[in-house]
This record gives sequence, C-alpha cells and structure tokens, in this order.
Amino acid sequence: MKACHLPEVMSDLPGRISVLRLGHRRERDKRITSHLGLTARAFGANEIILAGDNDESALETWRSVTQRFGGEFDCRHESRPLSFLRGFSKDAGDGKPGIIVHLTMYGEPWGDAVGKIIRDRPIVIVVGGTKVPGEVFNLADHNVSIGNQPHSEVSALGIFLQSMIGEIASDHFSGGEIRILPSEFGKRVLNLEDE
Amino acid sequence: MKACHLPEVMSDLPGRISVLRLGHRRERDKRITSHLGLTARAFGANEIILAGDNDESALETWRSVTQRFGGEFDCRHESRPLSFLRGFSKDAGDGKPGIIVHLTMYGEPWGDAVGKIIRDRPIVIVVGGTKVPGEVFNLADHNVSIGNQPHSEVSALGIFLQSMIGEIASDHFSGGEIRILPSEFGKRVLNLEDE
Repeated sequence: MKACHLPEVMSDLPGRISVLRLGHRRERDKRITSHLGLTARAFGANEIILAGDNDESALETWRSVTQRFGGEFDCRHESRPLSFLRGFSKDAGDGKPGIIVHLTMYGEPWGDAVGKIIRDRPIVIVVGGTKVPGEVFNLADHNVSIGNQPHSEVSALGIFLQSMIGEIASDHFSGGEIRILPSEFGKRVLNLEDE
Repeated sequence: MKACHLPEVMSDLPGRISVLRLGHRRERDKRITSHLGLTARAFGANEIILAGDNDESALETWRSVTQRFGGEFDCRHESRPLSFLRGFSKDAGDGKPGIIVHLTMYGEPWGDAVGKIIRDRPIVIVVGGTKVPGEVFNLADHNVSIGNQPHSEVSALGIFLQSMIGEIASDHFSGGEIRILPSEFGKRVLNLEDE
C-alpha cells in the first residue's frame, strides 16, 4: 500500500493564486482556454489572466459560470504579460517579490518542485501553449513539469492545483444560483433561486 | 502538515485501462479530444476509444505522439459505444465483467469512490461531453465526480488517472524517437535516433 500517488505538499493557507494563460488565439484555443479558466476556478485559483488575443467571450464564460456556480473568481485580459511578470517577480503588490511557477513539460519533476515552492506569497502559475518566450523560463522561480510526456495544459493545471491546494473549503463557492449535489446514480441539481 | 491532498488508493497493478470518449464532434471538439487522448496516454491508460465522429486526424495525433515519445498506446474508433459498454459490463474479454467508471460532475465524490473501484479487472473510464445518454449512468459501476464544479473532462481525466495509477514505471514509455529531460531552467530534448 502506498498512501497516495501525489507528492507531499505543505497545507498552509496559500497566498493569492493567479493563472496566466499566455498566447491565447481566439479561434484555435477557444475551448482549451475556456476549460483552463474553469479548471483554475474549480481547483481554487483566485484569478485567471488572459494574454494573447483579448477574447471577451472567454472572459464572459468564466464570469457566467462564477455567477451561476458561486464563489469569487476574477478574470481579465493582460496585453503585456512579460512586463506584468517582470513586475510581479519584484513586487506582488505589497513591495515584496511574488512567486512565478511555469508549467512546462520541460521542467523539473513536479514531485521534486512542489515542496520547494513558497506558499505564503502571491503566486502566478504561467501556462503557455506552444512557443513560450525563453524569458518565461528565466523569470520563473520554478519551471515545473507534470510528467515529461506531452498531454495538456488543462490536465497539468488541474493536477498541479489539486496537489497544491487540495480540498476546497466548503464555503469557497458560496452564493451562485445552482449547486450540483453529488450522486452515485444520476443528476441532482439544486436551484438556489427557488429556495 | 497533511501528507497528501488526494484520496488514498490501492497500488495494486491495475488491469487494462481504456478511456472511452463519447460524442466527439470533429470541428468543435478537435483540440479537447486530442488533449484528452494525450492525457490518457501520459497518465498510464493503455487505450483511447473514440466515439462520435470517426475522426482520423485525432487517431493520427495519438499514433504520432506515441511513435515519437514511446510506449504502447492503442486507439480506435467505436461506432456503437453503448453497445460496446453493455458488452463490456458483462464480459471484458475473459468471460468476466469489466468495470465501468463514468467521470461526471454529477457523480459521487472521487474521494469516496476511488477506494471502492475494483482494480485488478479491465476498466473503461467513460468521458462524455455534454448530453451523455442516461443509460451511461446506469451502466457505470461508478459515477465519479472530480469536484462538483464545472471544469473540463481533460483535467478530470488527468486527476483521476494520476490518483489511480500514480507514478508511471520508468519503462512505460520505452522506445520512441525523442525524450524530454527534466530541467529546472530550460528545454532539454534527447534525440534517441542520434544515439
């Protein structure tokens, strides 16, 4: 018996977690980017920052899901992501450096990296597609791979966040209009507006 | 300190693991389905079965990645997925029932379900998009949710497989043409054909 298949992580309350999606292309990446933002939200990130095309439909999807399913989740477009990262690496808004984690299949194995990541500071998790600028590797405090096989930025982000944050507090998704009730056998949806 | 944020699972060697992707639509789902198959492969599934549109380009992507990055990974199209599931639930090929796990945000919480799943039998993990036929909920031995928030079938599959299978044996991806070498600071790729 092995207790668990994910690396050991600290369970301190983390600082604010943002996900930066680089190089979004409105047509080609539409659904992957949408799923990426929903994954960020579902596994406890506080914000997704969209870089590349300024795609209002992606932002609208995330706002709509947050309105219906509750909780606080911010999203915005960033037209100068490298400049944003350079600034964040020096000052996360409180005069102290923020932590940058870059998810890449070329990175250090996740099991080795995750214990080294400082958790009580604001974190930006950078998720690229193809052609991530080399500077991102240098700006990152951690270049982390979720396996060294090609798969998906969506699964990489989900596994990383799930591993880092773990179970989401029950009030994290408070408010909203509907709630899914877990069920072994079918669909159970609670409409909170009927309450 | 909490040892790990994923539920405790058995580490017996599993039976053959197939992923069944329902309802693929060639244009709309192109990249999500592609990422789903790559996620299946990267986290240790043996096969992806594509239902919905018979999309040779998806199969070709998976074959090509397997050829370049190694290991054994099967893929095929299935024109009658419900019939396939009905058969598999009675006979996984050896005259005994196979295990069907349906990933759905309506399902039983993953932490509760994962310990109940019989591991030494062939497993089909069913991943739908929208509009999964109600019969799938009934055919499934386990309807499992990776959180009850909307996110992505790609992250759901990645987290589920990672949790169930854990670390992949070092020879799982043997062969192939290239290999990524983990690195903290940049891209390191080994071309096995130059060896």
